[in-house]
Amino acid sequence: MARHFSLAKMVFVMPRPIITLTTDFGVSSPYVAAMKGVILSIHPDVNIVDITHAVPPQDILSGAQTLATATPWFPPGTIHVAVVDPGVGTARGIVYARFGEQHYVAPDNGLLSGLARRSPPDKIVAVTRREHWGPVVSATFHGRDIMAPVAARLCGGLSPDDLGAAQGALVKLDWPEVRIVPGKVQGSITAIDSFGNLITNITQEMLSSAPRGEQTRITCDEHQTQGIFETYADQPEMTLLALFGSSGHLELAIVGDSAKAMLGVGVGTPVEVAW
Amino acid sequence: MARHFSLAKMVFVMPRPIITLTTDFGVSSPYVAAMKGVILSIHPDVNIVDITHAVPPQDILSGAQTLATATPWFPPGTIHVAVVDPGVGTARGIVYARFGEQHYVAPDNGLLSGLARRSPPDKIVAVTRREHWGPVVSATFHGRDIMAPVAARLCGGLSPDDLGAAQGALVKLDWPEVRIVPGKVQGSITAIDSFGNLITNITQEMLSSAPRGEQTRITCDEHQTQGIFETYADQPEMTLLALFGSSGHLELAIVGDSAKAMLGVGVGTPVEVAW
Amino acid sequence: MARHFSLAKMVFVMPRPIITLTTDFGVSSPYVAAMKGVILSIHPDVNIVDITHAVPPQDILSGAQTLATATPWFPPGTIHVAVVDPGVGTARGIVYARFGEQHYVAPDNGLLSGLARRSPPDKIVAVTRREHWGPVVSATFHGRDIMAPVAARLCGGLSPDDLGAAQGALVKLDWPEVRIVPGKVQGSITAIDSFGNLITNITQEMLSSAPRGEQTRITCDEHQTQGIFETYADQPEMTLLALFGSSGHLELAIVGDSAKAMLGVGVGTPVEVAW
Repeated sequence: MARHFSLAKMVFVMPRPIITLTTDFGVSSPYVAAMKGVILSIHPDVNIVDITHAVPPQDILSGAQTLATATPWFPPGTIHVAVVDPGVGTARGIVYARFGEQHYVAPDNGLLSGLARRSPPDKIVAVTRREHWGPVVSATFHGRDIMAPVAARLCGGLSPDDLGAAQGALVKLDWPEVRIVPGKVQGSITAIDSFGNLITNITQEMLSSAPRGEQTRITCDEHQTQGIFETYADQPEMTLLALFGSSGHLELAIVGDSAKAMLGVGVGTPVEVAW
Repeated sequence: MARHFSLAKMVFVMPRPIITLTTDFGVSSPYVAAMKGVILSIHPDVNIVDITHAVPPQDILSGAQTLATATPWFPPGTIHVAVVDPGVGTARGIVYARFGEQHYVAPDNGLLSGLARRSPPDKIVAVTRREHWGPVVSATFHGRDIMAPVAARLCGGLSPDDLGAAQGALVKLDWPEVRIVPGKVQGSITAIDSFGNLITNITQEMLSSAPRGEQTRITCDEHQTQGIFETYADQPEMTLLALFGSSGHLELAIVGDSAKAMLGVGVGTPVEVAW
Repeated sequence: MARHFSLAKMVFVMPRPIITLTTDFGVSSPYVAAMKGVILSIHPDVNIVDITHAVPPQDILSGAQTLATATPWFPPGTIHVAVVDPGVGTARGIVYARFGEQHYVAPDNGLLSGLARRSPPDKIVAVTRREHWGPVVSATFHGRDIMAPVAARLCGGLSPDDLGAAQGALVKLDWPEVRIVPGKVQGSITAIDSFGNLITNITQEMLSSAPRGEQTRITCDEHQTQGIFETYADQPEMTLLALFGSSGHLELAIVGDSAKAMLGVGVGTPVEVAW
């Protein structure tokens, strides 16, 4: 890595502030770029990181899961801007929220519910003071006209307290619940990854009293498998197997293929673990 | 945001120069990465921002619209590289153009037409001096071999005048025109966003004498709606409504669904506003 | 470009280290963002560049071709992290490898085969020392838990020798071979780009004794074309033509359309050049 030491003089510089973006605008959208342009126009040295722009259109629950999965891995001080906003231009609010050392700017429509289920926010502010917004605010694109300028100004040192008044609670989504009874845990598929693996809302913790071996049966729709394994390669090709995925949730996978396609199931399909 | 002040010594540094990329290479293409590698090899500290790589293949008009929508939001001094280039390797030229404080490097095939329709370029230079290109120039990938090196060198301080001779005009695309007569404006769908909203070439300005209320009828193919609203939520679910979108153009949307899918229309379908 | 000189004091700073990411996680995956968060948490000023996240799921050969096409264009000292890893959690190793001045961190499953075919690696180290990994290592996501932390620490100055013991060779993929006989070269389609152009494993060098003119016949499945041209525009619309693409490989293209769709062929289809 010699090149990193090749220039004449070394100085300590502050690391660039980080803003992440999560939207449902799609990968071909010029709207994402408009938000980036607004951010860089206010604070030219922000490190903008795309989380994803392929949240299914207006699917707040999916966006909430993405934020909960991805954002806790970022460094303290990161500002996460999330725009899945079917109610743009209505009375729905825009909020700043802090969870630990992660900061969020988003419509107050449940998009932060996945984070709030783990631990309550440490701070909530209603984003209402127009002097920190963009110069022109459209009725249909608050991501560009409000949330991007606000996030850029937070990077520049603006205090969250200057954005508006403190707010008591966030709007909550109905979240797919898990039912736990002795010898049985009943949940559902809440996400499907690009490999077709079925990710459930059943966590390793909820199954702490379930044995890993064959006496544990996992049922999804009309399909069943036995035992919970360590990794995808623990069963032969084309076999349905259960394991705990990288986020600690129970997953169902078909070795070497797409469980989604093979089983014909989707988000919302019930999954039961019994022993 | 405490972390931004945590390091020992603060200095003022120049913000990193910005290069944006707009191509039709697709999201799975290694060609985009090759362009980024070339840029960073010449100027290792450029902030490269993807606008989109999902312009429909060889669709110069769509690329021109994307550039016109997204690039004006970037900070002064940004260099935009656009590669939708079906004529690569032919006699078509490559140009540097400046519109206000935004700089462009692109094939001279109409890709800058959307920008040029708003206001003429402030400067045009034919990119012909080979000493600023890459060391090897293929016949099929001038994005990597000419445009990326030229953009990186502009970031490094090269004057646009050094790229070649001044040029009088840019190649223009046939642009879908709008017909304005008393009591009627006739345009067409020119883009469809990821939500299936139909974006037209009819602007708020063109409709300045149209009333917003029910006496204004918007017709698209065999479908009709009345009135122009403020935001998507101003009508019940599954209703067709018209509004001015975030770029100031008239849009047709189905509340909570895709107007594209429901109406079965596409780019080029005529849209008429009458009152 | 006046803005680049507008701030008060100029200093020389080291260019930020670069890490590229190549995965099969898909464009909607929060997993890519988790890797970025891990990298930035360890080394907040890394310039993270996406190569692609749309490698077909678990397609090691396709990932290997992408790495070979894109990564050599990056500056010396770049660290490339590649995660196409169907064997995650099994006994398959993780390796650091250096090819020239490019550095790689990847599962040892053949993903570096495309690079290794050109020239042998200059250094291989088995990534085994857990003290440089993340604090918790899941069984299913070594990209986030091992490869991302290791790459970030290499950027921070960790020596590759500290990652584990030197290793003699890399796992190799069966690579689609080319047969060269007098007057004939037999290869196959190995990749298809977003325009539907068919890219073969037949290089310009292999055809150095073939004439460019009509006496050279290129056969793909039941389709045939004559002559090797300079650029896509050298033949009329809707004509099948052969040329050398930007990576020096023979390509088959339909002018103005998708050769893949028109010919109904795919990766693996034999291509023969005879004269």
